[in-house]
Amino acid sequence: MLLRTNIPLRYILKGIKTELLFVVIYAGLIALEDRYIHLIKIDIPLSVPMIMGTVLSLLLAFKSNQAYDRWWEARIVWGAVVNDSRSLVRQVLSFSETPYESEEVQSWQARITNRQIAWPYALGMSLRKKMDLEVLRPYLSARELKFITTHENVPNALLQLHAQDLRYGLQQGWLNSYQQVEIDQTLTKLTDSMGKCERIKSTVFPVTYSLYTHYCLFFFVMLLPFALLTVFGVMEVLIVLAISTAFFLIERMAIHLQDPFEDKPTDTPMTIISQTIERNLKQMIGDHEAVRHVTAPDTDFYVM
Amino acid sequence: MLLRTNIPLRYILKGIKTELLFVVIYAGLIALEDRYIHLIKIDIPLSVPMIMGTVLSLLLAFKSNQAYDRWWEARIVWGAVVNDSRSLVRQVLSFSETPYESEEVQSWQARITNRQIAWPYALGMSLRKKMDLEVLRPYLSARELKFITTHENVPNALLQLHAQDLRYGLQQGWLNSYQQVEIDQTLTKLTDSMGKCERIKSTVFPVTYSLYTHYCLFFFVMLLPFALLTVFGVMEVLIVLAISTAFFLIERMAIHLQDPFEDKPTDTPMTIISQTIERNLKQMIGDHEAVRHVTAPDTDFYVM
Amino acid sequence: MLLRTNIPLRYILKGIKTELLFVVIYAGLIALEDRYIHLIKIDIPLSVPMIMGTVLSLLLAFKSNQAYDRWWEARIVWGAVVNDSRSLVRQVLSFSETPYESEEVQSWQARITNRQIAWPYALGMSLRKKMDLEVLRPYLSARELKFITTHENVPNALLQLHAQDLRYGLQQGWLNSYQQVEIDQTLTKLTDSMGKCERIKSTVFPVTYSLYTHYCLFFFVMLLPFALLTVFGVMEVLIVLAISTAFFLIERMAIHLQDPFEDKPTDTPMTIISQTIERNLKQMIGDHEAVRHVTAPDTDFYVM
Amino acid sequence: MLLRTNIPLRYILKGIKTELLFVVIYAGLIALEDRYIHLIKIDIPLSVPMIMGTVLSLLLAFKSNQAYDRWWEARIVWGAVVNDSRSLVRQVLSFSETPYESEEVQSWQARITNRQIAWPYALGMSLRKKMDLEVLRPYLSARELKFITTHENVPNALLQLHAQDLRYGLQQGWLNSYQQVEIDQTLTKLTDSMGKCERIKSTVFPVTYSLYTHYCLFFFVMLLPFALLTVFGVMEVLIVLAISTAFFLIERMAIHLQDPFEDKPTDTPMTIISQTIERNLKQMIGDHEAVRHVTAPDTDFYVM
Amino acid sequence: MLLRTNIPLRYILKGIKTELLFVVIYAGLIALEDRYIHLIKIDIPLSVPMIMGTVLSLLLAFKSNQAYDRWWEARIVWGAVVNDSRSLVRQVLSFSETPYESEEVQSWQARITNRQIAWPYALGMSLRKKMDLEVLRPYLSARELKFITTHENVPNALLQLHAQDLRYGLQQGWLNSYQQVEIDQTLTKLTDSMGKCERIKSTVFPVTYSLYTHYCLFFFVMLLPFALLTVFGVMEVLIVLAISTAFFLIERMAIHLQDPFEDKPTDTPMTIISQTIERNLKQMIGDHEAVRHVTAPDTDFYVM
Repeated sequence: MLLRTNIPLRYILKGIKTELLFVVIYAGLIALEDRYIHLIKIDIPLSVPMIMGTVLSLLLAFKSNQAYDRWWEARIVWGAVVNDSRSLVRQVLSFSETPYESEEVQSWQARITNRQIAWPYALGMSLRKKMDLEVLRPYLSARELKFITTHENVPNALLQLHAQDLRYGLQQGWLNSYQQVEIDQTLTKLTDSMGKCERIKSTVFPVTYSLYTHYCLFFFVMLLPFALLTVFGVMEVLIVLAISTAFFLIERMAIHLQDPFEDKPTDTPMTIISQTIERNLKQMIGDHEAVRHVTAPDTDFYVM
Repeated sequence: MLLRTNIPLRYILKGIKTELLFVVIYAGLIALEDRYIHLIKIDIPLSVPMIMGTVLSLLLAFKSNQAYDRWWEARIVWGAVVNDSRSLVRQVLSFSETPYESEEVQSWQARITNRQIAWPYALGMSLRKKMDLEVLRPYLSARELKFITTHENVPNALLQLHAQDLRYGLQQGWLNSYQQVEIDQTLTKLTDSMGKCERIKSTVFPVTYSLYTHYCLFFFVMLLPFALLTVFGVMEVLIVLAISTAFFLIERMAIHLQDPFEDKPTDTPMTIISQTIERNLKQMIGDHEAVRHVTAPDTDFYVM
Repeated sequence: MLLRTNIPLRYILKGIKTELLFVVIYAGLIALEDRYIHLIKIDIPLSVPMIMGTVLSLLLAFKSNQAYDRWWEARIVWGAVVNDSRSLVRQVLSFSETPYESEEVQSWQARITNRQIAWPYALGMSLRKKMDLEVLRPYLSARELKFITTHENVPNALLQLHAQDLRYGLQQGWLNSYQQVEIDQTLTKLTDSMGKCERIKSTVFPVTYSLYTHYCLFFFVMLLPFALLTVFGVMEVLIVLAISTAFFLIERMAIHLQDPFEDKPTDTPMTIISQTIERNLKQMIGDHEAVRHVTAPDTDFYVM
Repeated sequence: MLLRTNIPLRYILKGIKTELLFVVIYAGLIALEDRYIHLIKIDIPLSVPMIMGTVLSLLLAFKSNQAYDRWWEARIVWGAVVNDSRSLVRQVLSFSETPYESEEVQSWQARITNRQIAWPYALGMSLRKKMDLEVLRPYLSARELKFITTHENVPNALLQLHAQDLRYGLQQGWLNSYQQVEIDQTLTKLTDSMGKCERIKSTVFPVTYSLYTHYCLFFFVMLLPFALLTVFGVMEVLIVLAISTAFFLIERMAIHLQDPFEDKPTDTPMTIISQTIERNLKQMIGDHEAVRHVTAPDTDFYVM
Repeated sequence: MLLRTNIPLRYILKGIKTELLFVVIYAGLIALEDRYIHLIKIDIPLSVPMIMGTVLSLLLAFKSNQAYDRWWEARIVWGAVVNDSRSLVRQVLSFSETPYESEEVQSWQARITNRQIAWPYALGMSLRKKMDLEVLRPYLSARELKFITTHENVPNALLQLHAQDLRYGLQQGWLNSYQQVEIDQTLTKLTDSMGKCERIKSTVFPVTYSLYTHYCLFFFVMLLPFALLTVFGVMEVLIVLAISTAFFLIERMAIHLQDPFEDKPTDTPMTIISQTIERNLKQMIGDHEAVRHVTAPDTDFYVM
């Protein structure tokens, strides 16, 4: 079998049930009319819906590709978040060179690491417009929590706190000038990832395209029965249903993919990724105990 | 419902009303001629317009893809402007290390931040060829305003002022040499974003392609009635109208997308993005009061 | 002849044998029914499966392209692993400037080089979920082995050890500050490569697309015999088999390509690449003896 | 109207007039033969040229895409030249920190700026194989002119002079070590842009593809009249002309786009871009007088 | 005329002569059978091979695109080799700041430059599996030649020698620390280019795709005569030949492009590029005499 996860067929069809209902009723009415009433006598050659079908394929292929690109870019950005989180902590751990492993340095390293664990959680909640500071509380001090509540953009505020800690590390002599600048570049990368997510989130896929594709699809579906009636008779309803299901599903999937941060089952798995980051970073600072406390990923969402 | 914004159908059709009027009159005349006059007797098999339709699909798919790429690149560039603005201010705030938080340093930081708030507004107006220095006045000093009036390219002049302030920061010892070079790299990124916008703005999509697609589309539309006449009779007018609307809309949408800085309703939302930047940067320097004064985005434009 | 490797036809067909069996039985039953029973009398015009075929081509082209992109990205990432391994060792060898080629420095260089040889092996096993520390034992000290056993993510732990050795080199004066930062950038690149592999591994190709393509393909195959029956008679079974083999093979190949780290014959050749890295790095530290001991690549897997 | 520039239809058709003449004569002869001579009796079903048309669409879509990519990459590279020129001058102006704004430093800055103004002109002439040192004379000293005459690759020689001036600036203490390296990175970017232009210029689009597309197109055109004769009679000449014009135009446009540095009307507007750079850089060093002397862009070329 | 080089038609057809011979014989036999024997009576409607043709177009378009991408990437990589060679020498010449232009420094600069001239020759021979150290002898000292003979990967060994010379330059005070690191980044870029070439070389295009496309094409060709027999009679042989030539040529071209380092006439022109690099670098160190000795490019290969 070629599937990796058990997505019930029901779930897939749920999204297009209104459209399918409409198709069945519409095609059924036409079949009934043709059988018992004979008021209208339209007989369209199959090549007319075929031209429409070509245009439609063009539009859907275009839409699918752009939607997939958005979805895949979202995944790439979150992959970069994973990488840059690891790099940040590796740099903070290995750059700071004190003559003895002082407790002060270690608490400074732990502070930055915990804040970096909080960062992807904060970014995820910010993108889903569900900011809940309680989630971040275990990783931040009271002072830090107070600071970020005054900011609209919480992840950006956390990066600002990172930057302040880097300056503190430079002033204390735990970092040299090159190292501060180098770690700051990692902060810049995190800023870029954050901005990319916001861009994908806030840029609506050109609405006119979506709208037009939708109209064009309905027009195609409404033409279809007249072309199939002479060949199939009542069976036409089934064929129309099958073909239109095909097109509606492609459209629906593109719609799902094109908004990867909308808190839907087919979303980017931001919480799972954040938990992976948490486990990795905790191990990097030797906090093997804490790792076990990271709850297992919530399996409520289908992985898409 | 699968739309996110209410774009009235009227708005979409407005752009192609001349073309549709022409199609209706043309197809109508042919239908009338066929019914009452019978002077000409042309009957084209459907496969001839189908060949044309394939060529046309090729051209429109090509055009749509390139137009979408331009539009999406414009969005990426403005996303980078957001990111680099935040990074710039974060660097200016966290690098400058004075023994005490002197007032002089703070005013220097605020000066750079305000200038960076002005920058995206200036870039947007420059791209729309609607430079209005009054918009920038709240963020700049009199000396700065005087400096930029002597420059054709206002955003570039602002970056030059940034660079001078960095040198000043180095001379005063607020920045060290690495930090100056590091912030200068952020200025280089802003220069690149500015140049990319200008490139998209000034590079016309190959005119011959556009022209040819347009001619080809008209030829196709003019062939269509003769192919549909025998099958549909007078109904032909409706089918021709439907099919040609489809093609004209795709062409029109590509034309809209391909020029993302033309001050049209479907434009890149540069003003909204600039306001987001303003709110973010003001919060970064702790100016929470000012944030409230940023007016809400102008909803006069449809988001595309 | 245009093939480069002898993949037996048998291997290719093995993956789709269930599907082909189903097709033969199904098409055969319909042919028998048509010849001897005459219960059903369905005759579909060929243009109906042709519309389905267009939709299907759209879906398969989409799937093939995305699958190929995943596969090719996996290759690019592993190419980058090769490059960065060489750069890392070149930097470690040429940066460390001691007045005399002390033994201590050489052992430090050898330690890093050996660890870098272990790294791609560890990454490969980690991606295939077959971590076997025995494979890494020849390249690591006991202390290093103990360190990585406490980590879930072994390649990340190795990079952390690299970073600690760089700090040690800086403390000993074998590296200057710029050089440490420069080599750290190479570590960041390796971190990025690791993260990209994990992203490709853990991101399932949108299941709904796969599922839908599969259903659509079956529907197409089940329609086909009815369209071909009148033209070909019993020969129809062969034609249906040929056409459906074509489509099933394209689907199967896309499935193979889309998961490049699944320990299948058509996998990314991670072990071979790791061996190339081992040979290169050993020669760079002048260990020409050891090169001979690297076993020849295991030819058990077909190169895809 | 959807065009931005008035390209006369005549100009577009000029490039394919030989081909069109051939088509008219060929299709005309066949029409005459069919009407008056009746020697040959070939009647091809329309689906045969339709298969050819599909192959042809494939080839032309492929060719158009690659040609467009070359053309667009050329524009991107020249956009980068604009950006890096501005960054270079901004860095030279803002990095050099002398206690007093000495005349010596200012003349050094002006020397580099003028040389950078000369650089895009030199690159443009080099790519068009029309090197004219007189064009560069206003921006260079006699010594510099003498130096570049000994080099085949003039733009590369100019970058070498830039690099020498940077070293001079370092020796004089006008730049510190980081700043020299930072500006050198901008020189590296300019080197990359230069090399990319040379690559596009010197890499011929795979000739076999072009050749084959051309043959295939002719074969298609020669088949067409036989398929259209029975349906259209003498009208066939017009239809063949229309369809083949469509295909020939697409081919011709791809040929135009694929060589963006060939000194043709549809070229990359390198001279206009160079003049924009000149105006920008002159304003950056405060030379507002000189800006007026930059002649208006030569409107002899159509913008494509 | 639209061709830039005279590739004889003969050369293009040579690659597919076996296939064409097979097609002629096969189609001829069927035509003869149909005329004189009448044993078999198969008559396939044209729409069956048309479905196959669509699938085939899909496969060939996919293959052409990926092959072109490989070929174009190879060109991009070699373009980067040109750029980085120039940047390396520019940096070595302009960074080294000795109080007086000592002879020792000049010989060190010449040594690195000559080694960099040797590098692309070595890379080219390495990719073509034709390593000939005699070609490199003019540019290397005896000691260097001896060093590289102990390495499997010659270009990598040359980069290691570069890195050693950079350390020597640092030790002698000819370079400062930033400059060493900066030039080392150029070495990293060259390492990346080398690795990318090796990746393209060693990654076989998915064999199953190639194989399947080939089988599918043969199946299509074998179906074709039966579909064309009723329409064309004996003429069918010519039409089958024409159509199958079209498809075979596209396949063949894709095969040519997909392996850009195979020492074939349509190869990446690595020797010509290496000679361009040699001329450029020699002029950069003022060795105008030597430039004349670089032999003209070998015109034995067709430029593709």
